[in-house]
Amino acid sequence: MSDDRVLRVGLLGAGTVGAEVARLMVANQVDLAARAGVGLVITKIAVRDLAADRPGIDPDLLTTDAMSIVTNPDIDLVIEVMGGIEPARTLILTAMTHGKAVVTANKALLAKHGAELFHASDLADVDFYYEAAVAGAIPILRPLAESLVGDHVERVMGIINGTTNYILTKMHETGASFESALAEAQALGYAEEDPTADVDGFDAAAKAAILAGLAFHTQVTDEDVYREGIRAITADDVSVAKAMGFVIKLLAIAEANELHGSLEETISVRVHPTMIPVTHPLASVREAFNAVFVKCESAGDLMFYGRGAGGTPTASAILGDLVAVARNRNEGSLGPTETDYADLDIAPIGVSRTRYLIRMDVADVPGVLASVASTVAQNDVSILTVRQEGRGADAELVVLTHIATEAALANTVKDLRQLDVVQRVVSVIRVEGLI
Amino acid sequence: MSDDRVLRVGLLGAGTVGAEVARLMVANQVDLAARAGVGLVITKIAVRDLAADRPGIDPDLLTTDAMSIVTNPDIDLVIEVMGGIEPARTLILTAMTHGKAVVTANKALLAKHGAELFHASDLADVDFYYEAAVAGAIPILRPLAESLVGDHVERVMGIINGTTNYILTKMHETGASFESALAEAQALGYAEEDPTADVDGFDAAAKAAILAGLAFHTQVTDEDVYREGIRAITADDVSVAKAMGFVIKLLAIAEANELHGSLEETISVRVHPTMIPVTHPLASVREAFNAVFVKCESAGDLMFYGRGAGGTPTASAILGDLVAVARNRNEGSLGPTETDYADLDIAPIGVSRTRYLIRMDVADVPGVLASVASTVAQNDVSILTVRQEGRGADAELVVLTHIATEAALANTVKDLRQLDVVQRVVSVIRVEGLI
Repeated sequence: MSDDRVLRVGLLGAGTVGAEVARLMVANQVDLAARAGVGLVITKIAVRDLAADRPGIDPDLLTTDAMSIVTNPDIDLVIEVMGGIEPARTLILTAMTHGKAVVTANKALLAKHGAELFHASDLADVDFYYEAAVAGAIPILRPLAESLVGDHVERVMGIINGTTNYILTKMHETGASFESALAEAQALGYAEEDPTADVDGFDAAAKAAILAGLAFHTQVTDEDVYREGIRAITADDVSVAKAMGFVIKLLAIAEANELHGSLEETISVRVHPTMIPVTHPLASVREAFNAVFVKCESAGDLMFYGRGAGGTPTASAILGDLVAVARNRNEGSLGPTETDYADLDIAPIGVSRTRYLIRMDVADVPGVLASVASTVAQNDVSILTVRQEGRGADAELVVLTHIATEAALANTVKDLRQLDVVQRVVSVIRVEGLI
Repeated sequence: MSDDRVLRVGLLGAGTVGAEVARLMVANQVDLAARAGVGLVITKIAVRDLAADRPGIDPDLLTTDAMSIVTNPDIDLVIEVMGGIEPARTLILTAMTHGKAVVTANKALLAKHGAELFHASDLADVDFYYEAAVAGAIPILRPLAESLVGDHVERVMGIINGTTNYILTKMHETGASFESALAEAQALGYAEEDPTADVDGFDAAAKAAILAGLAFHTQVTDEDVYREGIRAITADDVSVAKAMGFVIKLLAIAEANELHGSLEETISVRVHPTMIPVTHPLASVREAFNAVFVKCESAGDLMFYGRGAGGTPTASAILGDLVAVARNRNEGSLGPTETDYADLDIAPIGVSRTRYLIRMDVADVPGVLASVASTVAQNDVSILTVRQEGRGADAELVVLTHIATEAALANTVKDLRQLDVVQRVVSVIRVEGLI
């Protein structure tokens, strides 16, 4: 066993985040030791390429053999910042069975195999922390799991992907197309060369699963999350939204459903482009910033705002977890573990209640509005506002509905497509945040 | 000793907050027990008046003998929501020496006797939690003390008094005078009959001391906080601010000072009316809401927003602490304790760096601006903008300075008052949030 006066850390990965963790652990070692009550020392760092240039990192610490770190009896804690499912999953599980605490920023892994990892840390009696996995430096997981644990969360709604928020901010503020805003984000390093994980909503869905699990004390995986990305959002959609006093954001929403005529509570978790009023607090969250709104029965509305990604902010969250583990170890105890006692069912998307904004090209003939309105009404959906603009032979009709179930709204759109007077349903975007 | 399958709670105080705590502990008992891993039961409630109407509270639980609760061997945890310094202080200290964990919402007590209470809880080996003491339901203390413990906080700046924010919001939005906005706040229950604690900044100063202590790992008391209230703010001040694109808020600011030519770090903690640009995130925090901005070296800018007061939001924070203590007890451990290892000096107000907006009535004669400008320059202060508006015989001159020390700014104002051409310095308000 290792010396109790230091906590020896094995670092898996020395990319943007890992390199910052290593740098800050040295730069801030005096403060970190004072706060943790014990010295924090990096003993080994697993990397893919020993030859890569790593300024400030002692080459003697490097190894390409990650397995040797997670089985090393001299190491007390493993920080996993390599990302991806394998080998991260196997390495974390092995570290735990070897009695090591684990701190990770790996949202994809947590969203897929969270239950397995929580179970393994329970069995091995080791700490498992992951504040950095959602919304980077913003303290949101600990507040949900600890500060708000005496309350009932009703809804979590957030901007938790910086890449898409950067793209949508540029589209809103400059009128750019999705393609050119994406290219700009890529040039600035906000988007990957293959932007799929971000723009198709996979990253946000993984984080949404983690948030939903904590908020509702239920196991939620990324497969449970309804997901639509932002590829289909056009400059035209953004400009129509803007003209109506809205901004389009990729929102992650996890909420408790009140089922009519049933006492059984279910939750919905969904990620999709969403129009929100410009006056909504989330509307002013620009560029790569993140923000999470939490609505609680007793606490009311709360918002958490900050940098959702980047090496240094993410490293800040990891170091906070590292100090927490060290303090627990000093006490001979473990931090609070996840509860999934509520075991709520995850409802299909059809059960969710929202509003739709439906844009259609219609024939500019008498009776168009009447037949659109009656189609909407037949689906038990009410209309909040309608805007029709003639363009010569045809017209654009924009319908904003009242709140209804996704099922009723989807059927409405299906029926509208069948109408002779509707030439084309141009776009359908959900609307949240109206009172 | 009491039964390990329940955690027995003694409640000191059954006012707005205490009654909500009692109600929610019954209404949510199944969820609370599942999350805490143990049943949570109120055993006794100390009140001043046994005869008062308390719907939903079992009269058999009531006692006027608070001391009998804190010395009762069957009670595991004491929740103190009576407020004030004594007898709260003595009761909490007695509870601790009798081995009971303590949860409190008492900011005034913490700001005055925090060090004594932390020391007593350490000695007695009991948990001491107080998330509800600052910004009500907003999780801000746990994030500062735990999530951000691996980072360096540079600045905490917040709206942490709902009463004054309500008054200033009304003044800004309706043009009301301080007196009439205060009367409205009193009629709505947002302000006490004697509003001193709120409008003179005592409440905010107590909370600022608590925030500063956690952020900078240093003992800070309310006496260390420079404090100015909002009584002197006129409708005219608000309207000038508004015309210039600013809003006036009562801000609490705790920050690390970079001393020129010295390596020694000090902190400043101050509460005063402050002009911030309408585009600043804190500017849109309206009515009785609270928000706290935290600037960290690694995490960057973070903001926490929500309801800062009220029975139910405050009860939410107390119940979160209650569950935390119960979980610690299941583990046989204690939560993290405060660190004050940094022991930074608290600088006098003169060291703080800010901007001033100075409004003066001046004679409308040639050379006024020149003599004002040279007086400002003689104090090593630079001018950012100047506005002069003639009103016949005299004129109003508004000077917005660049950032300078409080000492230099105060000297500038003193010298301006001596100038023959300056008839009156109408008001001096600090300005923050400009880039």
